[in-house]
Amino acid sequence: MIQLSDRMLPLEARRLGIDTRQEPIVFMRSDCPVCRSEGFAALSRVLVSSDSQHIIATLNIVTSDMVAPGQIGFSESAWRRLDLVEGTPIHVSHPPPIQSLSYVRAKVYGHTLDEMQLQSIINDIVDGRYADVQVAAFITACGSDRLDLGEITALTRAMIKAGETIDWGLPMVIDKHCVGGLPGNRTTPILVPILAACGLTVPKTSSRAITSPAGTADTMEVLTNVSLSQEQIRDVVKREGACLAWGGSVRLSPADDLLIQVERALDIDSEGQLVASVLSKKIAAGATHVLIDIPVGPTAKVRSQAQADKLAATFEDVAAALGLNIRVICTDGSQPIGRGVGPGLEAKDLLAVLQCKPDAPAELRTRACLLAGALLEMAGKAAEGRGQALARETLDSGLAWQKFQAICRAQGALKRPPVAPYRYSLTTPRAGQVLSIDNRLLSKIAKLAGAPLDPAAGVEISVRLGDSVEPNDVLLMIHAESSGELNYAVDYLEAHPDVIQLTPEGNTP
Amino acid sequence: MIQLSDRMLPLEARRLGIDTRQEPIVFMRSDCPVCRSEGFAALSRVLVSSDSQHIIATLNIVTSDMVAPGQIGFSESAWRRLDLVEGTPIHVSHPPPIQSLSYVRAKVYGHTLDEMQLQSIINDIVDGRYADVQVAAFITACGSDRLDLGEITALTRAMIKAGETIDWGLPMVIDKHCVGGLPGNRTTPILVPILAACGLTVPKTSSRAITSPAGTADTMEVLTNVSLSQEQIRDVVKREGACLAWGGSVRLSPADDLLIQVERALDIDSEGQLVASVLSKKIAAGATHVLIDIPVGPTAKVRSQAQADKLAATFEDVAAALGLNIRVICTDGSQPIGRGVGPGLEAKDLLAVLQCKPDAPAELRTRACLLAGALLEMAGKAAEGRGQALARETLDSGLAWQKFQAICRAQGALKRPPVAPYRYSLTTPRAGQVLSIDNRLLSKIAKLAGAPLDPAAGVEISVRLGDSVEPNDVLLMIHAESSGELNYAVDYLEAHPDVIQLTPEGNTP
Repeated sequence: MIQLSDRMLPLEARRLGIDTRQEPIVFMRSDCPVCRSEGFAALSRVLVSSDSQHIIATLNIVTSDMVAPGQIGFSESAWRRLDLVEGTPIHVSHPPPIQSLSYVRAKVYGHTLDEMQLQSIINDIVDGRYADVQVAAFITACGSDRLDLGEITALTRAMIKAGETIDWGLPMVIDKHCVGGLPGNRTTPILVPILAACGLTVPKTSSRAITSPAGTADTMEVLTNVSLSQEQIRDVVKREGACLAWGGSVRLSPADDLLIQVERALDIDSEGQLVASVLSKKIAAGATHVLIDIPVGPTAKVRSQAQADKLAATFEDVAAALGLNIRVICTDGSQPIGRGVGPGLEAKDLLAVLQCKPDAPAELRTRACLLAGALLEMAGKAAEGRGQALARETLDSGLAWQKFQAICRAQGALKRPPVAPYRYSLTTPRAGQVLSIDNRLLSKIAKLAGAPLDPAAGVEISVRLGDSVEPNDVLLMIHAESSGELNYAVDYLEAHPDVIQLTPEGNTP
Repeated sequence: MIQLSDRMLPLEARRLGIDTRQEPIVFMRSDCPVCRSEGFAALSRVLVSSDSQHIIATLNIVTSDMVAPGQIGFSESAWRRLDLVEGTPIHVSHPPPIQSLSYVRAKVYGHTLDEMQLQSIINDIVDGRYADVQVAAFITACGSDRLDLGEITALTRAMIKAGETIDWGLPMVIDKHCVGGLPGNRTTPILVPILAACGLTVPKTSSRAITSPAGTADTMEVLTNVSLSQEQIRDVVKREGACLAWGGSVRLSPADDLLIQVERALDIDSEGQLVASVLSKKIAAGATHVLIDIPVGPTAKVRSQAQADKLAATFEDVAAALGLNIRVICTDGSQPIGRGVGPGLEAKDLLAVLQCKPDAPAELRTRACLLAGALLEMAGKAAEGRGQALARETLDSGLAWQKFQAICRAQGALKRPPVAPYRYSLTTPRAGQVLSIDNRLLSKIAKLAGAPLDPAAGVEISVRLGDSVEPNDVLLMIHAESSGELNYAVDYLEAHPDVIQLTPEGNTP
């Protein structure tokens, strides 16, 4: 059908500089002859072709002079996908039907999909043939526990195949993943150098924050350079046995990134998609031994032990079907792990642990050693029950700190975390015991203060569950890089005083 | 949370003239302090407030000078919803959570929703609180036959309550609906004057084409004025007992319009939503007696008799629960009804039937009388089995044609259909019998020729199933208002010669 539009004069490409994330959008004038003859309306899906490439995009109709007659405007994602320059001749026509949507419909009608059908859906999503609403339909159709084990395994394979994979040519490659939701849970930059110092290969790539105040990549970025190419990652891992890089510049399981964008807007839990998402990334990254950390708590992502057990079983079954060694640990998710929430504050915490400072957050050290210990046991570096001790020894000997510095230097820099000039302390007017800490509200306050874009911004929590406090004790401190953002976070804090709850008055010990 | 943003300076509203249909979109600069402090990213849902009103919109981030510093750009729907003028001060903040999304999630997890929950979802959709991907999740969760009768009934009630309703103060108000998919099936403008001439009240509002080459409103628009206010509709119906107006200027079941936009992109059949959609519109319009026409055929919307029977039963059960008199007729959907496809050509057909011309399309007359007859019997104007005869008499006596002219004059005009200057005839190179006619391809060709925007454009079919043809007989003729559009439709026809298939060579009688 591409040749159909040849009779029409081409339009001139114009970059509009509009970020619509993954969904490519083109902007055409309502009086454009192509719109009229094709019968295009706002939100039509259209096939947009340059001489060398084509994409499917969503159409927005323009009634102003934002786009001149004879032009067609492009969102950033559409511009990049077509690799355009200003004025490139563009043809627009009706897209061919998307065959794989019939499989999405089959899933809606309760059918079980096979690997070919899931591969076809995933390929079309990665190739940009689905509108966001169609991705939403796929996610919803797979929601709850509508995918069986065979489908989750097939979906994982399909997501791996739709992207690049890294083959390390090694019998054992270590990775870990935390099923999010816990602020300040920055164990990765501690356990990676512990494991590497013990001789394991840990090519760790992490994500930036999407809805949280900091991702591991954001935190590591205040300490070193994390934007590495696949070649640079290989070099660092070859030299130091490990890296702490951002995963965004390597194209591992790109379907996952696209699905996550829409999943976030829906907030529909799909155990099957969560498992496929995590395992496809790990297997594509070349991991052979993977630890999954599931924090469980009332304000964490997974809220009950029963839910965690079910999720753990699915992880184990699908990993077994894919030949991946896996271990799942359920941990306490009832409160933040370190003291800081936000890139710079979390970096400060993890440096204190690595440097064995006396005031280092004890829970962060314990949690990192617990997870590192499990991996050391999985990898045969420690006998069962001896892993945590080996992890602690590696920290206490300074070997982990040395390895961390070596990794950062291999990545091109070893920087000091930034410090925020503006602060606000929340104190308690009365004595009591800390009864609850709301992870979600803490994250929100840290984001309002500027995290993660302002690396020094965030929240520092001074208490833990069960702590006794006296009048005027500091409960938490907000850090910000500007007074405007500080005020913003303070406003929110004042409207939500239940972020840290004390025992009711009179109940103090 | 609205007061939170008061510390920030307001932004200046700027109308960008971008049509994104129902979804309100705002455009903010990536360096905008509000984006930074709120942590907004592309596709964030944001609460946009003027002094007097607020809406929830989807954010697009702009990296060009399309929006100046200190400004915020608006899509047409966002601009209209907030009723803005250039430069209005605007505050932007995080929207409150949407409670009803938890009911959508409950539906995904297989729970049955009650009327309060469905009402809450529908109200939020009508109020613009849902992003399109969230509407898609709701539609998908209700897809296949996941809504039970109680839910469909509750959904219908909720959709009625979310809009305006018309009360005619009459014991009997007639309406009809065709479950689409059949080109040229323009029976409504024929049966409405038949019924009105027999003394029935038929305040018919119709839709414009969305994906088809013509809606009833498009066809009527070439003959009279169809954009009537609710007040004008009342006047016309009071004078003539009937109208033939466009339904778009009255706000009946607005949820339906919003759901349809997204359903179209998904093409997921939901029997429950189809029934709720049709019945909510009819009840809101004040109808008491409704006829549903379900054309059944391999290229119609409903493809098998079993599917039609199931759908008919659901219509009947839900209508009974809502106290609506209903009758469902399944008709032959294997080929177009009239000869013309496109507003002007369909108008020509229906005028020929109303004027009892000898060359009027026989099937269109028969079909209109069948449906009118069923309604005359429902309404007690004819004994069972006598309705079609009364309909034919009303046509043959000229009373229906007189009533049609009176209705058009009451609506402000009686115009002659336009005629297209450019034509292309498809002839057959050999003799044979007509084996099949593809409704979907015919619609596509008519749209490529310019229908419905070019009212004279479309396709005229010269043959019916089973007809014998000789070499050089005309099978169909394309009409267009410009040579460019004619070529466009001809290209498509040449690429799809199977639009009309003859018996294989040697099988001719």
